[in-house]
Amino acid sequence: MSENPTPEAPASSPSPSTPGYTIGDYLLDRLAELGLTELFGVPGDFNLHFLDHVVAHRDIRWVGSANELNAGYTADGYARIRGIGAFLTTYGVGELSAINALAGSYAESVPVVQIVGAPPKETQASGRKIHHSLGDGDFKHFLRMAEEVTCAHADLDAATATWEIDRVLRDVVFRRRPGYLMLAADVAAVPAFPPSEPLTTDLPVTTPGAEAAFEEALRRFLPGRRTAVLADLLVHRLGATEELASFLADSNLPFATLAWGKTLVDESDENFVGIYSGAASQQRVRDVIEGADALITLGVEYTDNTTAGFSMDLDPARLIDVSRFGARIGDEVFTPISLERALAVVHRVVVDLDDVVPMPAAQAPEPEAPRHPTEGPLTQNGMWEILASQLESENIVAADQGTSYFGMATHRFPARSTFIGQPMWGSIGYTLPAILGAGLADRSRRPMLLIGDGSAQLTIQEMGVIIREKLPAVIVLVNNDGYTVERAIHGPDEIYNDIAPWRWELVPQLFGATEEGHLFRRATTEAELLQACQDAMENREKLVFIEAVTHRDDIPQLLEDVANALKR
Amino acid sequence: MSENPTPEAPASSPSPSTPGYTIGDYLLDRLAELGLTELFGVPGDFNLHFLDHVVAHRDIRWVGSANELNAGYTADGYARIRGIGAFLTTYGVGELSAINALAGSYAESVPVVQIVGAPPKETQASGRKIHHSLGDGDFKHFLRMAEEVTCAHADLDAATATWEIDRVLRDVVFRRRPGYLMLAADVAAVPAFPPSEPLTTDLPVTTPGAEAAFEEALRRFLPGRRTAVLADLLVHRLGATEELASFLADSNLPFATLAWGKTLVDESDENFVGIYSGAASQQRVRDVIEGADALITLGVEYTDNTTAGFSMDLDPARLIDVSRFGARIGDEVFTPISLERALAVVHRVVVDLDDVVPMPAAQAPEPEAPRHPTEGPLTQNGMWEILASQLESENIVAADQGTSYFGMATHRFPARSTFIGQPMWGSIGYTLPAILGAGLADRSRRPMLLIGDGSAQLTIQEMGVIIREKLPAVIVLVNNDGYTVERAIHGPDEIYNDIAPWRWELVPQLFGATEEGHLFRRATTEAELLQACQDAMENREKLVFIEAVTHRDDIPQLLEDVANALKR
Repeated sequence: MSENPTPEAPASSPSPSTPGYTIGDYLLDRLAELGLTELFGVPGDFNLHFLDHVVAHRDIRWVGSANELNAGYTADGYARIRGIGAFLTTYGVGELSAINALAGSYAESVPVVQIVGAPPKETQASGRKIHHSLGDGDFKHFLRMAEEVTCAHADLDAATATWEIDRVLRDVVFRRRPGYLMLAADVAAVPAFPPSEPLTTDLPVTTPGAEAAFEEALRRFLPGRRTAVLADLLVHRLGATEELASFLADSNLPFATLAWGKTLVDESDENFVGIYSGAASQQRVRDVIEGADALITLGVEYTDNTTAGFSMDLDPARLIDVSRFGARIGDEVFTPISLERALAVVHRVVVDLDDVVPMPAAQAPEPEAPRHPTEGPLTQNGMWEILASQLESENIVAADQGTSYFGMATHRFPARSTFIGQPMWGSIGYTLPAILGAGLADRSRRPMLLIGDGSAQLTIQEMGVIIREKLPAVIVLVNNDGYTVERAIHGPDEIYNDIAPWRWELVPQLFGATEEGHLFRRATTEAELLQACQDAMENREKLVFIEAVTHRDDIPQLLEDVANALKR
Repeated sequence: MSENPTPEAPASSPSPSTPGYTIGDYLLDRLAELGLTELFGVPGDFNLHFLDHVVAHRDIRWVGSANELNAGYTADGYARIRGIGAFLTTYGVGELSAINALAGSYAESVPVVQIVGAPPKETQASGRKIHHSLGDGDFKHFLRMAEEVTCAHADLDAATATWEIDRVLRDVVFRRRPGYLMLAADVAAVPAFPPSEPLTTDLPVTTPGAEAAFEEALRRFLPGRRTAVLADLLVHRLGATEELASFLADSNLPFATLAWGKTLVDESDENFVGIYSGAASQQRVRDVIEGADALITLGVEYTDNTTAGFSMDLDPARLIDVSRFGARIGDEVFTPISLERALAVVHRVVVDLDDVVPMPAAQAPEPEAPRHPTEGPLTQNGMWEILASQLESENIVAADQGTSYFGMATHRFPARSTFIGQPMWGSIGYTLPAILGAGLADRSRRPMLLIGDGSAQLTIQEMGVIIREKLPAVIVLVNNDGYTVERAIHGPDEIYNDIAPWRWELVPQLFGATEEGHLFRRATTEAELLQACQDAMENREKLVFIEAVTHRDDIPQLLEDVANALKR
């Protein structure tokens, strides 16, 4: 094992400058520099020594997860709020359990780093049958698997580790995709120098010529056109949320988002027309977005689930599209321009020109009056309306990819609240660990989880960590007796859409909640649900677990529309 | 989409012979032919239509799992008893959640088939952003990942599907490794003919010349040598357990197994000397195995965990080794010979020769008298001794890869009982779903699960299925406050070896057990544990959940030896 200092070390330093400072410490310092203060994961014999350095780190705290998939989901939820997330597993068994979470971070463009504690290099080189390997002497199987679902990966070795760490972290942050670091137990312990300079993650993209050409074309294209704005997830992911807000405030144009980008914009703004979902949109939204003579699309990526099966009716000739690395007007392409710079151009031009016409929108429906609870059993419609009416500014709301997502996505959220879903990857059970990560990423905001009984069964054990971390989450468990989202698509009465029946009221206690630390409420009517929400408001320091019972076959309208589109 | 009959269809058939018979049905028929009667998994929109065929199948029953990793573990436990196992997931999210289980089946040589319901071929060809994909238009990412951890895989298409199904299933059974079938929703529905001939899975291996040469060499080598037998897992996996029993009965040689092959032989036989674990073996076992002038090793694969870090002291010149595809005597190699045929040769030669000398063994220790419960808190030593004394013939015992495995592996098991562990792959939490699969694979044998609190947290939700399936398992949950197996290796007092504290007594109720359907017992002393075991015996139709409390740092001797070896 090399004791040489790393290549970046200043030539004048005869030895590592901090006693006992290692490659593992370097990695942790870089993660801390990017804003990480919690590391999730599960210990294993190939990462235990590295964990000593985690526990000893000044800025990073270890948060043990119940299992590795949940650790990956938690890190993803954390990264969506914090801008970076990371989790640690052991080799083979640990990393593969979590690889679905990593793929989800890829599909949903979330910057997460997976660190895998691996057998020492010498052990790998022996080619012997080491536990947690396939026993065939090939220790790169899982690295190759990770390659399929990450934007950058490395099998760190002593001589180049710090350089490789920087490369992978830079890619993760710049590209907003997950990365993978295989950290052999012996490599983690090799002496190193701390970073001497900040990590550059903001690589240049824009060519001035492309930017100027885009601006010129835009000044020719926009005048006199009735204009609207459609924004989506990538604006958030690429850090241009503030710039977007500023543009919308200055331009007075009507705007919408796709469901993937929900809460990217202020949904309480009078120019917000709603969520655009192709043919499944509300008519008023559709009229504005599909009828505009110029539609400015910002960071938009159309997926089957967010467009009811690609049912959008948009004329390419009328589009001004700003994407990750460039812009288009009709069929003219301007690249490379970063999304942020192209958005700034759009902002400047729209404000400069005095003949950009806001696309008129039909009269906005009256703001929803606080719902008076109706009699009878709780319905999906009533449930989501009540829950939406109880949201507060700053809430972080995660909705699992079943009735919860489709039910909540169509409701307006308060300003500065955040909606977390997974319409692209759609891994059920994701949100339970994800809300833990999101809640820990910003303790000042109350987290709320909306999840069905079928989904919650996949990842329920993370309740133990939510409780151990004293996260005052509001958890609404929709008990509708199985996979209702699947019933909507096919097999409404088939046994494969049934699940094992659980007694949900025991969840908080089993997973460690004290009597004083939590409330449990069961809601079978709107009045009971409203009361449960009010109890939650009055108990801001407690975990509140609400079992909301709806009929097995009752589904939100949006889900019905999307399910019908997917059946075609 | 082709409506052509499959290549194997008899030329005289003008159309598929069974109305509505599809490629999906063909796959199910082949699995049923191999002995499968339960299919595990989780529904998803890309497998729902295929599930209609599963539910309608004459011989196969759908058993829905709580999540996909657990489905994979359950199928693995099932296959270890039944000889074949299978599970069904959806594309992307589902399959990746389970891929750790598939890799475990590879490492542990278990024939499991993963079926993945994928988007229709036409949808894939569109390259659009389809949910459950990465959104980059490449629908083969996960197939390539599966390739790393399976012995055979196929992306089925209409024209060649039945041929490909046969190829993959044949490889799975013949090689005793997992296989992967990507079944696009539209391909599953294509009309097909039922199989016309049984699937051949027993491919020829042996060359008569090699066999004859091996026999001749053996007849020269054995005479006058003090001989012993060391057998391991592959004898079981390759279906030669009966042949081994017959050989041991006829030969009167002393024998041992490695822990991986535990219960492969009758451990109540007087010639059974114990489990060989290299330097961590009992002295008597070591003397016999390492001291023999001729050691016949049968299907042995040395792993770090089963040999205390490859600490075996065996002279290659004295070995007769029979492996999957050949045999060796000293440095002479005889190949190809199947394990079963080579074992038959050994059997014949040993019986024929009248001067093969059994390696003498030290006096066997007195058979353990039924333990009289000692006073004071329950210890690991006392716990495993009591549990071992309560085992019955025909029990299937799964021990998770922590103190449970190391504590139980050294105890003698009754004849015809089965021990299930994962010393090679070592994925904690595996055994909870695995005991469900094993129990369903043979309902006539009572299943018993030994698992620590740290491990059980990973996969606890499968309790719901154990209960729904009314499996009368005896579950011993060792509550020792965290990852004790990791504490033994490193960081005995570190927070990363702590877990969230749960109230285990609520487990049966939360996951759906009725009052009449289960017993819960908490044991903090040997007397309480013994009583709990006796209650379990008297309630053979019930689920019995025993929380056995031991000290955080108390570990079995074998674990201490192995941990010390791994630290080196």
